Amino acid sequence: MKRFFILSAMLLAGTMAFAQQALWGGAPVVSPEINDDNTVTFRLKAPKAVTVQVTGDFLPTRKIQTPFGEFDAPGAADLKENEAGVWEYTTPEPLAPELYSYTFLVDGLKINDPANVYMIRDVASVTNVFIIGGDERIDLYKVNKVPHGTVSKVWYNSPTLGMDRRLTVYTPAGYETSGKRYPVFYLLHGMGGDENAWTELGRAAQILDNLIAQGKAEPMIVVMTNGNAALEAAPGESSLGFAAPNMNLPKTMEGSFETAFPDVVKFIDKTYRTQANKKGRAIAGLSMGGFHSMHISKQYPDMFNYVGLFSAAIMPNENVSSPIYDNLEAKLATQFAKKPALYFIAIGNQDFLYQANTEYRKLLDEKGYPYEYYETGEGHIWKNWRIYLTEFVPKLFK
Amino acid sequence: MKRFFILSAMLLAGTMAFAQQALWGGAPVVSPEINDDNTVTFRLKAPKAVTVQVTGDFLPTRKIQTPFGEFDAPGAADLKENEAGVWEYTTPEPLAPELYSYTFLVDGLKINDPANVYMIRDVASVTNVFIIGGDERIDLYKVNKVPHGTVSKVWYNSPTLGMDRRLTVYTPAGYETSGKRYPVFYLLHGMGGDENAWTELGRAAQILDNLIAQGKAEPMIVVMTNGNAALEAAPGESSLGFAAPNMNLPKTMEGSFETAFPDVVKFIDKTYRTQANKKGRAIAGLSMGGFHSMHISKQYPDMFNYVGLFSAAIMPNENVSSPIYDNLEAKLATQFAKKPALYFIAIGNQDFLYQANTEYRKLLDEKGYPYEYYETGEGHIWKNWRIYLTEFVPKLFK
Repeated sequence: MKRFFILSAMLLAGTMAFAQQALWGGAPVVSPEINDDNTVTFRLKAPKAVTVQVTGDFLPTRKIQTPFGEFDAPGAADLKENEAGVWEYTTPEPLAPELYSYTFLVDGLKINDPANVYMIRDVASVTNVFIIGGDERIDLYKVNKVPHGTVSKVWYNSPTLGMDRRLTVYTPAGYETSGKRYPVFYLLHGMGGDENAWTELGRAAQILDNLIAQGKAEPMIVVMTNGNAALEAAPGESSLGFAAPNMNLPKTMEGSFETAFPDVVKFIDKTYRTQANKKGRAIAGLSMGGFHSMHISKQYPDMFNYVGLFSAAIMPNENVSSPIYDNLEAKLATQFAKKPALYFIAIGNQDFLYQANTEYRKLLDEKGYPYEYYETGEGHIWKNWRIYLTEFVPKLFK
Repeated sequence: MKRFFILSAMLLAGTMAFAQQALWGGAPVVSPEINDDNTVTFRLKAPKAVTVQVTGDFLPTRKIQTPFGEFDAPGAADLKENEAGVWEYTTPEPLAPELYSYTFLVDGLKINDPANVYMIRDVASVTNVFIIGGDERIDLYKVNKVPHGTVSKVWYNSPTLGMDRRLTVYTPAGYETSGKRYPVFYLLHGMGGDENAWTELGRAAQILDNLIAQGKAEPMIVVMTNGNAALEAAPGESSLGFAAPNMNLPKTMEGSFETAFPDVVKFIDKTYRTQANKKGRAIAGLSMGGFHSMHISKQYPDMFNYVGLFSAAIMPNENVSSPIYDNLEAKLATQFAKKPALYFIAIGNQDFLYQANTEYRKLLDEKGYPYEYYETGEGHIWKNWRIYLTEFVPKLFK
């Protein structure tokens, strides 16, 4: 046998040397490089490029004018080229701990960093990501050496919608063998998002793993739904195949999702070892998911004991009428008469929904409905939603 | 309440219009476009580029010379620019049904297609993907309207390796509520791969869903391990964070993974409703995973009744000695004396491991050990490994 072993070893060595460059990437540069002082260096080998910029949420935003008014857009910084055709930019200051997103602009063409395999799709845009750690909160976003829960992609049948649909379900470390029943937290995404959003840019599994390991949160099941009732699953994961994400969003804020929500709860209670009662259930969501959480929790006032509205899109779609949206004030009265354990509202003071949330809080204040309020800086961004998740989860099921 | 609802609706409309372009992608072109006749058009808006090419496995390969000999490299085709700065290429012929990978080369810089959010990382390289369907086998790679199994990312503790490690586990549709026990198929990746490889480029969950729905395969659990015993998990999913994938691969073909494999089997049998005996277990792998499957199945001859070697890297690492690799022929004698239900060898006739596999089969022939052999064209590529999976799975647990 010796002979063919040596032959094949030689062949393998040859292929590996080739593969090293092709399949294995063999990126000619390191990018991004997080330096010891938490400045970050971005590099791109592009000898024929005329201009190379990096754009991302680590840069100060710049104001842009649109027909609808002034908005914040991500800033851009110029890379400089060396003799080897490698373009480089180092942030002038250390970056604060955070999960950051960025892309390059090469002669105006937006591209992902070919040296960084870590990319996250947000709605219909894919950006590279990196994390600067060293802060108690931001370190919750990392995979640390703690017991890890299971993240599952699970399909359920919705009789109300007449289709099979996909969920992301987090079960805490030890679930499989503990024999215990667990409370359930339903966590909803924003418009254009899907059942993958909270585990990707939201870092929900890492946040839960870490908060539970630190004893700051109760072990719980987290169920992340797809809030577009027209879709089976996230782009690329449904029978639509690799069609481009559909941004028409026909069934997002017109009542279907909220109407069909009890199908999800029934499926979860049938499939997992849950505490299948109001005391054992929480619901929260960001933006459109906050709108959904507000309507679902008041529509089914005996279902959820904990409610979180993160930068909630508190507004109706004026083109639709659904019984879900009727008699809002009467339904809120019923919901608060039943004394939910927590009604939590969080928003950034630069959020375009800040005013709407302020007026909604005024309504709650006028009626004497108790809620907790958590305000941050900045606006309608994942940075804030990760923060709100780390604030909300420790308050649940205690 | 009417007033603030209208205000926030206006604000939202404005932001959405902006977001449509930024976050929501708003790709200026459609790419790839699969035309009615299965030709495919690739487009890239890059008005400042001088040359734009597309490279991918849908193009004929070209021979390249390396110090180790001649190898096949993916071909490249030129896109042509129109007045609007949009570069375009349409394949001259319809593409055969297949899952294809591609990237663009813009003035020599390799980039992902900004209009296609579907990308898969293979080892340290990220490519865009698309599927041409319409063929019985290739349609198995699609998400079809059939009952779907659950895909979970699960952590287990390996006492042998002294670490927590991550698995991908597929449980078939109905597992959660059937109360039944299921056979288990352990499915191993190649060098540089990880526990995500078979569900991403391998389309294992889709293949299993579809074969089970068609009645061609038994419902089974599929366990996809990480074959690098130095690592907790795939790049980006371990406590190494978003560090670049480490291509040193210190613990891949030196015996650690094989030695610790019973830890995985014990965990699975403890955690899932399995048929916890030899009759209910299969193991197969591609390339390095075929090497692992060969060594594990002979090392533990009472563990697996079905063995699959897909383009197996049948060769020792000559720099290591491990008891796992000792007495190969004696262990094979023991394994085959116990009459495994299936020993399946598959390889492409252009594979650089073809000769090594031929000589290994010669050894089995000389000894009179029965095996099934399945030969395809082409070489050491995912196209073949998906085919071998679709051939192997229907033979299991019958």
